[in-house]
Amino acid sequence: MRIEHDGFGDLELSDDVYYGSVAERHRVCFPVGPFDLDDYPEYAQAVALIKIACARANAEIGALDAVKARYIEAAGREVADGKFSGNFCINIFRGSGTPLNAAVNEVIAHRANELMTGDKTLGGIHPNTHVNMGQSSNDVIPSAKDIVIYWELERLIGAAGRFASALEKRATETRDVLKLGRTGLQDAVPETLGQILGAYAHGIRRMEGRLKVEQRRWNHSCLGGTAVGTGMGCLPGFRAVIHRHLSDVLGREMVPEENVMDGMMALDGLIIAHAHILALATEAWKVARDLRIMGSGPRFGLREITWPARKVGEPDYAELLISVANRVTANNSAVTLGVQSGWLDLGASSGIPIRAIISSCHMLSNAMNLFADRIVSRFTPNKRHCAEVAEQSTSTSTMISTIFGYDIGTKVAHYALDHHLSCRQAALEMKILPREVIEEIFELSNLVDPDRMEALFQKYKAYRKV
Amino acid sequence: MRIEHDGFGDLELSDDVYYGSVAERHRVCFPVGPFDLDDYPEYAQAVALIKIACARANAEIGALDAVKARYIEAAGREVADGKFSGNFCINIFRGSGTPLNAAVNEVIAHRANELMTGDKTLGGIHPNTHVNMGQSSNDVIPSAKDIVIYWELERLIGAAGRFASALEKRATETRDVLKLGRTGLQDAVPETLGQILGAYAHGIRRMEGRLKVEQRRWNHSCLGGTAVGTGMGCLPGFRAVIHRHLSDVLGREMVPEENVMDGMMALDGLIIAHAHILALATEAWKVARDLRIMGSGPRFGLREITWPARKVGEPDYAELLISVANRVTANNSAVTLGVQSGWLDLGASSGIPIRAIISSCHMLSNAMNLFADRIVSRFTPNKRHCAEVAEQSTSTSTMISTIFGYDIGTKVAHYALDHHLSCRQAALEMKILPREVIEEIFELSNLVDPDRMEALFQKYKAYRKV
Amino acid sequence: MRIEHDGFGDLELSDDVYYGSVAERHRVCFPVGPFDLDDYPEYAQAVALIKIACARANAEIGALDAVKARYIEAAGREVADGKFSGNFCINIFRGSGTPLNAAVNEVIAHRANELMTGDKTLGGIHPNTHVNMGQSSNDVIPSAKDIVIYWELERLIGAAGRFASALEKRATETRDVLKLGRTGLQDAVPETLGQILGAYAHGIRRMEGRLKVEQRRWNHSCLGGTAVGTGMGCLPGFRAVIHRHLSDVLGREMVPEENVMDGMMALDGLIIAHAHILALATEAWKVARDLRIMGSGPRFGLREITWPARKVGEPDYAELLISVANRVTANNSAVTLGVQSGWLDLGASSGIPIRAIISSCHMLSNAMNLFADRIVSRFTPNKRHCAEVAEQSTSTSTMISTIFGYDIGTKVAHYALDHHLSCRQAALEMKILPREVIEEIFELSNLVDPDRMEALFQKYKAYRKV
Amino acid sequence: MRIEHDGFGDLELSDDVYYGSVAERHRVCFPVGPFDLDDYPEYAQAVALIKIACARANAEIGALDAVKARYIEAAGREVADGKFSGNFCINIFRGSGTPLNAAVNEVIAHRANELMTGDKTLGGIHPNTHVNMGQSSNDVIPSAKDIVIYWELERLIGAAGRFASALEKRATETRDVLKLGRTGLQDAVPETLGQILGAYAHGIRRMEGRLKVEQRRWNHSCLGGTAVGTGMGCLPGFRAVIHRHLSDVLGREMVPEENVMDGMMALDGLIIAHAHILALATEAWKVARDLRIMGSGPRFGLREITWPARKVGEPDYAELLISVANRVTANNSAVTLGVQSGWLDLGASSGIPIRAIISSCHMLSNAMNLFADRIVSRFTPNKRHCAEVAEQSTSTSTMISTIFGYDIGTKVAHYALDHHLSCRQAALEMKILPREVIEEIFELSNLVDPDRMEALFQKYKAYRKV
Repeated sequence: MRIEHDGFGDLELSDDVYYGSVAERHRVCFPVGPFDLDDYPEYAQAVALIKIACARANAEIGALDAVKARYIEAAGREVADGKFSGNFCINIFRGSGTPLNAAVNEVIAHRANELMTGDKTLGGIHPNTHVNMGQSSNDVIPSAKDIVIYWELERLIGAAGRFASALEKRATETRDVLKLGRTGLQDAVPETLGQILGAYAHGIRRMEGRLKVEQRRWNHSCLGGTAVGTGMGCLPGFRAVIHRHLSDVLGREMVPEENVMDGMMALDGLIIAHAHILALATEAWKVARDLRIMGSGPRFGLREITWPARKVGEPDYAELLISVANRVTANNSAVTLGVQSGWLDLGASSGIPIRAIISSCHMLSNAMNLFADRIVSRFTPNKRHCAEVAEQSTSTSTMISTIFGYDIGTKVAHYALDHHLSCRQAALEMKILPREVIEEIFELSNLVDPDRMEALFQKYKAYRKV
Repeated sequence: MRIEHDGFGDLELSDDVYYGSVAERHRVCFPVGPFDLDDYPEYAQAVALIKIACARANAEIGALDAVKARYIEAAGREVADGKFSGNFCINIFRGSGTPLNAAVNEVIAHRANELMTGDKTLGGIHPNTHVNMGQSSNDVIPSAKDIVIYWELERLIGAAGRFASALEKRATETRDVLKLGRTGLQDAVPETLGQILGAYAHGIRRMEGRLKVEQRRWNHSCLGGTAVGTGMGCLPGFRAVIHRHLSDVLGREMVPEENVMDGMMALDGLIIAHAHILALATEAWKVARDLRIMGSGPRFGLREITWPARKVGEPDYAELLISVANRVTANNSAVTLGVQSGWLDLGASSGIPIRAIISSCHMLSNAMNLFADRIVSRFTPNKRHCAEVAEQSTSTSTMISTIFGYDIGTKVAHYALDHHLSCRQAALEMKILPREVIEEIFELSNLVDPDRMEALFQKYKAYRKV
Repeated sequence: MRIEHDGFGDLELSDDVYYGSVAERHRVCFPVGPFDLDDYPEYAQAVALIKIACARANAEIGALDAVKARYIEAAGREVADGKFSGNFCINIFRGSGTPLNAAVNEVIAHRANELMTGDKTLGGIHPNTHVNMGQSSNDVIPSAKDIVIYWELERLIGAAGRFASALEKRATETRDVLKLGRTGLQDAVPETLGQILGAYAHGIRRMEGRLKVEQRRWNHSCLGGTAVGTGMGCLPGFRAVIHRHLSDVLGREMVPEENVMDGMMALDGLIIAHAHILALATEAWKVARDLRIMGSGPRFGLREITWPARKVGEPDYAELLISVANRVTANNSAVTLGVQSGWLDLGASSGIPIRAIISSCHMLSNAMNLFADRIVSRFTPNKRHCAEVAEQSTSTSTMISTIFGYDIGTKVAHYALDHHLSCRQAALEMKILPREVIEEIFELSNLVDPDRMEALFQKYKAYRKV
Repeated sequence: MRIEHDGFGDLELSDDVYYGSVAERHRVCFPVGPFDLDDYPEYAQAVALIKIACARANAEIGALDAVKARYIEAAGREVADGKFSGNFCINIFRGSGTPLNAAVNEVIAHRANELMTGDKTLGGIHPNTHVNMGQSSNDVIPSAKDIVIYWELERLIGAAGRFASALEKRATETRDVLKLGRTGLQDAVPETLGQILGAYAHGIRRMEGRLKVEQRRWNHSCLGGTAVGTGMGCLPGFRAVIHRHLSDVLGREMVPEENVMDGMMALDGLIIAHAHILALATEAWKVARDLRIMGSGPRFGLREITWPARKVGEPDYAELLISVANRVTANNSAVTLGVQSGWLDLGASSGIPIRAIISSCHMLSNAMNLFADRIVSRFTPNKRHCAEVAEQSTSTSTMISTIFGYDIGTKVAHYALDHHLSCRQAALEMKILPREVIEEIFELSNLVDPDRMEALFQKYKAYRKV
């Protein structure tokens, strides 16, 4: 047990916690809902990295003793590595980042002292005076936001790549699986399973590319802006050096906001960032939903593919991905409402939107990884059933219509329906064309390839009436 | 360490957990996102109560040994009391309730055996054969839903009552605090602070009443319907007695769904239930938002009230309630999307909507309780400032207009504006009426009371021109 | 061309319009978006009925000349009958109801004059002095809201009844159509088409009942409250008689708001009203979506039903209903955001929410009526195909498992799968039971009826092992 | 009256309409809701431009007679110029673009015939055979979508620029208006009105830039893909030339979708496009909301600015912009739900999302233009009141704390509060520093400029204790 004193009296703190009186008072005052910042560890980690950069900057401008700076950095590194999980037990709904900034200051100060002296309370490093030194939660937290979003998009880009690769592999494997396309769930024209899986893969790759572009935008910080962006209370020289240090610490270039006040007030970029996440979720959800329809069965249904058998305990992976996409969609509202909740100088409380973004990225990347590995990579195409169905489709008469005129095409289709035949069989029975022509025109693999269709067209152009 | 065997081989389970192989396989297969069913303990508790009722019913119809039934009940009671927190570590996004039903079956069976023999694995009570006995997650989980929602609405009704009481108390105390009304944030006509607080209180009471009506609807169960509502696999006699037992266990009357298939498929009632929660959140949010505007200051702003000083660690309670209301609004989307995600015979996965409802009720009731106790009950009206502002309002000339005609009223208002006077002072300087009449007509306490205004009207009716 | 003069100068108005300078200035000042109040004629009609009631009340208390009141009533009746469509060309996004109130005052006054004298501008009835007389848009518009919502819910209740009747009729007709149930789109246990259609019908009827209860709540008015609810400027005696007149005019009982300020500020009831609409939309959407899946084909797909052939020009009725349900879902956000947009004394601008409610009810009732008439009443069940599919389902072995033990049931199912047989055929080949027992137990019509299943159970109870 | 015959019989069409039997049958079959494609004329205009490009392409490959192509182009140009408004009276909720494609084909064919022969029905140009020629609504409509979105973003970019310019101009004019910043509506530190307006301007410019980047993405077409992307039925050579013609017609480069199937199925890009619109709406809404708070008054409230007097008929421009932003937020749900409503090969019906995007852009650009012109450019800063308020703020003691230590700063602030003085006056009375130092340190214009604050810091560095 250690005791901390502050303006409100003594406060007992357990020996194993590193946070101090400020965080403790925040912790106990606000027991709303089950979610705390420890559930979103990336957020505290980003703040810790900022604190390292600030310590280096403050040391460089001579405002902070070099030894203290080194211990702050060592402690900050541990926080950034996730070692103090459990110390950020502050409810996520508190809104503004004040308690998060305070808790990180306290944990770093106590750990830095401990590293220096073996005792959390000896060593003279003070959370406010030395760790926070001239910063404000109003400039630290918006900066942490950019760091966290960059990380989360990284995670999602990885999942998108894995998902796309799985689809591309299956698209190649199934490029010869002829099947019937469906529009509005109704029988339509032939296509290959590979074509449709390739289209899904292309959509996911497209979103992967857009996410990469979006990710690069999250490289700003408001550091040096203090309370409202005017920099009141910022130490001289700090603004000139902090972004160099921050870039070093993060290993990528960070630049100051062009207009710090705008950077603090306007969170609209979060709306666009989450829209990218939602767009990816929608793509992935479509794959899950469509494969589920294609896999309806096992004895009856479309039966175009067979899903891998589900072992006890395995979730219904389609339902998982669909549920997650629903939640991501709801999170989109949370982001928008959060962004729209600010007043005058201060931006909205970014707590709700950031939580929504972290949560969407976690859930979606996990669910996509599982779906890619367990379903996309493992379902079995029912090649023979697919081909039979495609062969029976009356849409195969479209090619007849295109080349030989609409009247002949329609006749063939009606004959096929009336006699329960395929159009190919109908055309043969009706003897409307030489057998070789019929076989060529109804060869399904010709009917799914634009170049082959153009070639057929050229070959039989003379017959065309229209 | 204990070992369970099932169709997939041996499985090691820690000695302290009560769940078995099914729940364990569910647990490890689906590590998506941080939230598990232990974060929403009410859900497992409701399932446990259903299991008690089923054990009693199955014993009554002779399908289950009476001794086993008694131990199942004892174990189920402990689960319902929250004793096995930590045993329902199944991700909430799994969707359907299968794993929850399985986990409760397993925990009850192991605990029942332990109560009987001192060993979880001895005693012969089997999770599936004896605890689940003829039930399906498809009839158990929809029934648990009604129980959970009833409880959650109970919690919220309590918070609404406490919030309304706090407002009513302050409305009475401030019934004489004259202030200026504001429409579109612009100066409007006089009113009392008590009137506006009373209107807020009335709104919350109104919602409390509607919540009570809504709560009473959640008294149905699908028990006996099994997989799709046809009752295939249900034991004979069970349907006839289960609702009597369920009512006994819950201490309130539960009735079977009129149409079990509808009860299983259609979750639309969740949309309406959550709309009630959202409506209350909107009312409470309005109070927080308006009090924040009234309390803008301390030196400049509306300054109609002064907020209690915030101690270190205390959240900004307005921001808290606003954030929570935003999150409840986003949850509304989650409920709708979840409800709209089912297919054919099975209803949507209720996981997302129920989680949203539980979470909304927890968050909102906590935030409302805090706001009622810390802000509503403790802010200070700035009576003198309020009265000065109201006195200066040009809207006080409305009464002149109403009684003596629009032209005279306008003249007074313009004179007041031009000479920086109150309308009362302007009327006095302009000598348009005897001093006593002016004092009576501009007496603010007359201008906020419809009955007194009617009386003034009658008294000076003769002057009226219109 | 007629000329009106007001404080801003002369204004030319076309001879055929009945509105005046106020509405005209509103009209030209705000050309945002294509939607105006003429697109939602119910809103102006409700205001006109209020004006009739107010004229009667003002005549009764002696504030309004009886002859003028009679002409106001006659003109108001024409507006309420929709005769002045085109005169309410005020953009819906103006927000507050001021321009709507003003436009109705002007149209009534001009038409009343015209009825009296043949000339819109002669007769001495003034929009403000005689039609508006002591009212405020702040008390008129919230009252109109209750009237409009009542009407719109009426419309929707009618559509729900028609939809449910269509489903009930088909449910009866198809009560013997045995089919395979599907959970998660996968083959499940047998049921009848009549059972599932009956469940849909039950869900719609349930919502019809809830809508009727909800509708009855919309019977309040704020009349007499004027600007902020304190009644400043209201004529003496008016409050005592207005609700009697309003009830007479509407032909149903209208009561004053218990707390007028609350009634003006708090629009949360709109959230709950629209949730009822959304819940019905969700039910109807589910029917459309499920029937579309059941009707997937025509040659391949589930083919449980065949949709009526679509004639040229007919919409895809499923897509229509689905699109409408989507828009209703989006309108739910519009209602919530609108309700949450007010400030202090004035409620949010009800324009957006009311527009959303009217639009949702129109769209949804039209789309439901079309879907009921064109699809529900006209699709063809594919009885034979459905029965074959159900017969082939391995789930029919469930009854064997329930009665004779899980082991035997599983064996039969595996034999059936391995030899491409139905479970009935498998059981016969395996000779596990006498032929009569097998025929009875696998008779599908027994397997969809809980009572017959209980009877079978009792009959073969002795065989049971568990 | 003219009569058209089709497979369903004769159909009478009024002489003044240009559409034909297909559009007419669509028109009458689906009377749901008040909105039709004539309300969104851009959509038909985009389709008409595509038809021109297709006619040119078909003429080039020899499939279409050159004279017919010329008349099709002339007619198409008139449609694109909006001349046939009233001919696209097809309900927007029909969903897929089939009726839109058909109606444009018919109007163009009839007008082309009329241009050629003076009679709509003579001339031999057939809607399907010659205008539609080998296209499908499934490739035409997704392509029209890119064109429409490009145009709509153009409109919005213009509005953003105008809004930002207005803000920039006012920011320059008010760069010396010292005022009190406010965080959480509470008095905070000094800033200038110019700084905050400049931050708003920067935010709008930022979004203008992002919209321009987003706009450039909408340059794809699916032409040549026909029904599902395989190109079945497309005329040979068409794919090779169509994009050259389309680029010519539009005057900007259009490229084929990299993967046509993906282009037809996946509409996720609409989610991101609308998120940009929503982000801009949020920025603009914040300006309106904040200026409304700053302008609260006129006699009491923040009174930092005075809004321009509102003339009769003028809307409350803040409420307008806020309502529009709410509606844009609701449209975001509509876009997402629409995009998520497709099935297998066909993308979702783009009708709802495109309608939402067009409507959001129209409403928002109009509302922003009005707000910029009528409010931003015309409000009056209350310079003197703002300066008095800022001078009185206790936050001005922050600079004392920063330079001379927290203890001295706090003492000054408390003295000021206790004696109702400004901090400057308090410091003078307390004589804690020489008068010149005090005047310099409390000079407000120093306290809003980071560089001047650094200079002060350097100057008085020696005093610093921390």
